[in-house]
Amino acid sequence: MTAKIRGVVPPIITPLTAAGELDVPSFERLLSRQLEAGVDGLFLLGSSGEVAFSNDAKRRQVLEAGVKYVAGQVPVLAGVIDTQTDRVLDHVRAAEAQGVDAVVATAPFYALGGPEVTERHFRVLGAASEVPVYAYDIPVCVHTKLNGQMLLELGSEGLIAGVKDSSGDDVAFRFLARANEKAGSPLSLLTGHEVVVDGAYMSGADGSVPGLANVAPEPYVRQWRAYQAGDWEAVRREQDYLADLMRIVTVTQGVSGYSAGVGAFKTALQLLGVISTNQMPVPAAALQGENVSRIAAVLREAELLDS
Amino acid sequence: MTAKIRGVVPPIITPLTAAGELDVPSFERLLSRQLEAGVDGLFLLGSSGEVAFSNDAKRRQVLEAGVKYVAGQVPVLAGVIDTQTDRVLDHVRAAEAQGVDAVVATAPFYALGGPEVTERHFRVLGAASEVPVYAYDIPVCVHTKLNGQMLLELGSEGLIAGVKDSSGDDVAFRFLARANEKAGSPLSLLTGHEVVVDGAYMSGADGSVPGLANVAPEPYVRQWRAYQAGDWEAVRREQDYLADLMRIVTVTQGVSGYSAGVGAFKTALQLLGVISTNQMPVPAAALQGENVSRIAAVLREAELLDS
Amino acid sequence: MTAKIRGVVPPIITPLTAAGELDVPSFERLLSRQLEAGVDGLFLLGSSGEVAFSNDAKRRQVLEAGVKYVAGQVPVLAGVIDTQTDRVLDHVRAAEAQGVDAVVATAPFYALGGPEVTERHFRVLGAASEVPVYAYDIPVCVHTKLNGQMLLELGSEGLIAGVKDSSGDDVAFRFLARANEKAGSPLSLLTGHEVVVDGAYMSGADGSVPGLANVAPEPYVRQWRAYQAGDWEAVRREQDYLADLMRIVTVTQGVSGYSAGVGAFKTALQLLGVISTNQMPVPAAALQGENVSRIAAVLREAELLDS
Amino acid sequence: MTAKIRGVVPPIITPLTAAGELDVPSFERLLSRQLEAGVDGLFLLGSSGEVAFSNDAKRRQVLEAGVKYVAGQVPVLAGVIDTQTDRVLDHVRAAEAQGVDAVVATAPFYALGGPEVTERHFRVLGAASEVPVYAYDIPVCVHTKLNGQMLLELGSEGLIAGVKDSSGDDVAFRFLARANEKAGSPLSLLTGHEVVVDGAYMSGADGSVPGLANVAPEPYVRQWRAYQAGDWEAVRREQDYLADLMRIVTVTQGVSGYSAGVGAFKTALQLLGVISTNQMPVPAAALQGENVSRIAAVLREAELLDS
Repeated sequence: MTAKIRGVVPPIITPLTAAGELDVPSFERLLSRQLEAGVDGLFLLGSSGEVAFSNDAKRRQVLEAGVKYVAGQVPVLAGVIDTQTDRVLDHVRAAEAQGVDAVVATAPFYALGGPEVTERHFRVLGAASEVPVYAYDIPVCVHTKLNGQMLLELGSEGLIAGVKDSSGDDVAFRFLARANEKAGSPLSLLTGHEVVVDGAYMSGADGSVPGLANVAPEPYVRQWRAYQAGDWEAVRREQDYLADLMRIVTVTQGVSGYSAGVGAFKTALQLLGVISTNQMPVPAAALQGENVSRIAAVLREAELLDS
Repeated sequence: MTAKIRGVVPPIITPLTAAGELDVPSFERLLSRQLEAGVDGLFLLGSSGEVAFSNDAKRRQVLEAGVKYVAGQVPVLAGVIDTQTDRVLDHVRAAEAQGVDAVVATAPFYALGGPEVTERHFRVLGAASEVPVYAYDIPVCVHTKLNGQMLLELGSEGLIAGVKDSSGDDVAFRFLARANEKAGSPLSLLTGHEVVVDGAYMSGADGSVPGLANVAPEPYVRQWRAYQAGDWEAVRREQDYLADLMRIVTVTQGVSGYSAGVGAFKTALQLLGVISTNQMPVPAAALQGENVSRIAAVLREAELLDS
Repeated sequence: MTAKIRGVVPPIITPLTAAGELDVPSFERLLSRQLEAGVDGLFLLGSSGEVAFSNDAKRRQVLEAGVKYVAGQVPVLAGVIDTQTDRVLDHVRAAEAQGVDAVVATAPFYALGGPEVTERHFRVLGAASEVPVYAYDIPVCVHTKLNGQMLLELGSEGLIAGVKDSSGDDVAFRFLARANEKAGSPLSLLTGHEVVVDGAYMSGADGSVPGLANVAPEPYVRQWRAYQAGDWEAVRREQDYLADLMRIVTVTQGVSGYSAGVGAFKTALQLLGVISTNQMPVPAAALQGENVSRIAAVLREAELLDS
Repeated sequence: MTAKIRGVVPPIITPLTAAGELDVPSFERLLSRQLEAGVDGLFLLGSSGEVAFSNDAKRRQVLEAGVKYVAGQVPVLAGVIDTQTDRVLDHVRAAEAQGVDAVVATAPFYALGGPEVTERHFRVLGAASEVPVYAYDIPVCVHTKLNGQMLLELGSEGLIAGVKDSSGDDVAFRFLARANEKAGSPLSLLTGHEVVVDGAYMSGADGSVPGLANVAPEPYVRQWRAYQAGDWEAVRREQDYLADLMRIVTVTQGVSGYSAGVGAFKTALQLLGVISTNQMPVPAAALQGENVSRIAAVLREAELLDS
């Protein structure tokens, strides 16, 4: 296993052309902007990276283009998300072939099976993967909450390298962080909750995976460095700014779920001139009209767009 | 679109060898037993057919072996289950290439998106598929309940041919059946709830897709024929027998979910000599020891095994 | 314990004056119409009887007026619904003082506690009540599903007399009905799902508690008698009529939950001239305008209102 | 409305005698210890104060004993928790008669009704109460999440004085805190999540309502004062200690829900000699045997009990 990944690791969205294909120039501009901001890693094909919408060919294109562009400047993590173990293993093999630095896998989903089944899934993945495996705790998508004790055991045995926590359960996260510290910190604990990263750092997080960093990577990088320097007032101030910016996902109307969340990130990035369109994958729909105006207003309040 | 599928259409389990490969001889014995019992169709790669556990190679093998063996004696439906539209479309193409008679698709899952997104998903599938599409309503797996009005509109426009209802919502099913009848029955409505098929027939179901029919196809066939003949007492009597037999999935201890459900079907089929092992796909585990004995006891009470 | 209650036992709504007080004349007209239709019992202060909205004074008034008017013509069941055991026991005492024939209690709610806690709750109630206790299985309100094996044990020990099932889980209901029959039928099993009573009778229900019977008691009474006579086609025909009538709770727009459900029953009863207003308890709101017209249209299609 | 309540406001448990009656001497020792620790208020009859288990007589005894003992040293908040508006209003009247300083009410429960119904409920309560009303956001008990915008509007109109947030949704809490600050802070925002109070202070909370403060009030008071002084490292250090102590609710086995949570608080308080027994209200059960030993071990690690 490589060294632990720490710091800010944005889950990169996947820019599409109007025809629904990977928009490579937009993708490269997005990655370039992240690297310039000083992020500590990049997570491709996460939930925000529309992994669930991407067939195998699209997944391969994203990893190929991303790994090539990043060229080892920071670690690249790849989502290998699928329903059950054998399908995930196929994605692990494909990601390894593209040269990623780590893979990120969720609990099994569609068919559920209880804690033993979840543990066996990660044990098989950990034993079979040549790169480090991160466990992705995202019950809103897979309807299983990963048990902290299990994660710690898997980490202590070297089967997983860390956890990307998007569970929304900050109490369980604190308990896990406390137990991880006492066990010698086998796990790298990364929070996915971009609105309360300061609280996660208070709890002992080793980094963050904030979807909003697609739009605004610098504040998250500054926040991480402030945390490393012990400047909690700066950590909090950056977070308040980012919480206000995150309203791009709540000011829209008539949309919900993925279309509202990643749809807002893509729309903001188009407004900022980073990507060419806010095209969404079928069956989601791109934001338009008044919803775009509402997002632009939030960007202006955040001084990311000129008034 | 072909003629509507009616009657008993068992969702066939996928027998595995001890090594986890498709066990073709067991699969053929299973299919043979179904055809001899007089079923009206066969559903491969459903939830019980471990579609979520099967990578693309395994899915292809199952369809290839199944279509070849059935050889047109009854329609073959294929599950094309995956997270979002593009991935499902790849499975549709693969299934069509194998010569199936219809495909069965769920609502999108992992990322959720609201009713418009669900409807767009089925519209794209319906327009792009050369064989009839059945909508699979299974909120326990995908966490979306399909809206009855949407289903009826899709059916009236010829985009879907029917519904496989595993929603557990018998009230919504009755409302859908009433509305379907008034609209000229554009949809074939098949119930997946093997314990209350009689109630679904009362509600107007056009057939059933009972997982338990893997173990006992004849009673379901007799029940369907009794329903066609208006013999409700026989419909009910067969159902009571089958409800008692269904206890094979509840008498076990220490297991849950998929391992308990399909695990029991496989174990019963092994006890009955139809398939060679009760091997389950990773990360599920095969039932063993006392749990096997409990299932055998239920089979003896049902007079399927000698005492 | 008295003899088992069987047949049609409507859960009576509570008519209010415009000031929110019990409207006794409307209440008596409603009860009179039920008795004339030939119902087998009456359930006061159920969920439809707005028990959760009624303070202790209102609950007392409803039972006092109801028991007095019914005067022993049929058994009167009283909801004694509250959060936890001690509070429920106070309602049991109050209901017994009013002379009811049985009480109906849910699992504890607000604070949850697991199966042992639920069982202890019913054991205490069963031991302390002088009248028979019915267990009310209504997870949509209390977020606990009652376990069938527990219910059967409580019944076999004489601690509960029956179950009012509003769980929506027709599979569990079938299993319970099968087990109850094999155990000598210690429980009276009543279904609360007015749209699929025919299916529940197929499963072995001993009767029904249909909220829609407030509006249309006769079809439910005819359906019960047809079931007793073995005339399944009549059972099904009445149910189809009632399923169509039940659309009064789905044709409205912009309302949900209690306001949509009981709100529709009250509105229909006002349109039929049975009660004086469709006043709802605070904080629910009465249906009005276009929603009333939509309900009237359904009543006309059902030939309950003149065109 | 009185001045906003800020700081540490423990939700006091209700000590019982072995017979299940209010144990007044234990209650007074508990209150005395809180006051000596320097808490800023006391919350009686909250979820931890077993309000849902307490009939009206018990509720009255708790408030009477509590208000008398506290004698105005700090504000006393009273839970007025019940299913729907009229029932809550009866508790408001009773609490006001006992001289409490504020009341705390949840969304309506048992029957649900959507956002308009929830808003109307709080509007009626706010208009009818003579003391300030706090909205209690506790979806795990009432299955409704309070909407931030609604809370802010109610606060701006003076209908509620604050929010006790036990929602577990730290993202929504951050958004509410940001909006409240921009609106001139009409609401006092108190967090109920004892394990992550530091994160809530980062988000802008005005105080905390930590159940664990029954066991350990001093660390929460020190934490609050450190926050007021801008000493974030101390805020975090106290929280880490308290997170470790909170394991008293997770180290037990074979219990869940209320018995595990409040059961652990009571057991710890008995071990510390503050209350006489760890008696729980029917139908919950007191912890015993090995579970008591496990809690004692956590108390020893926290240096609250001698080794």
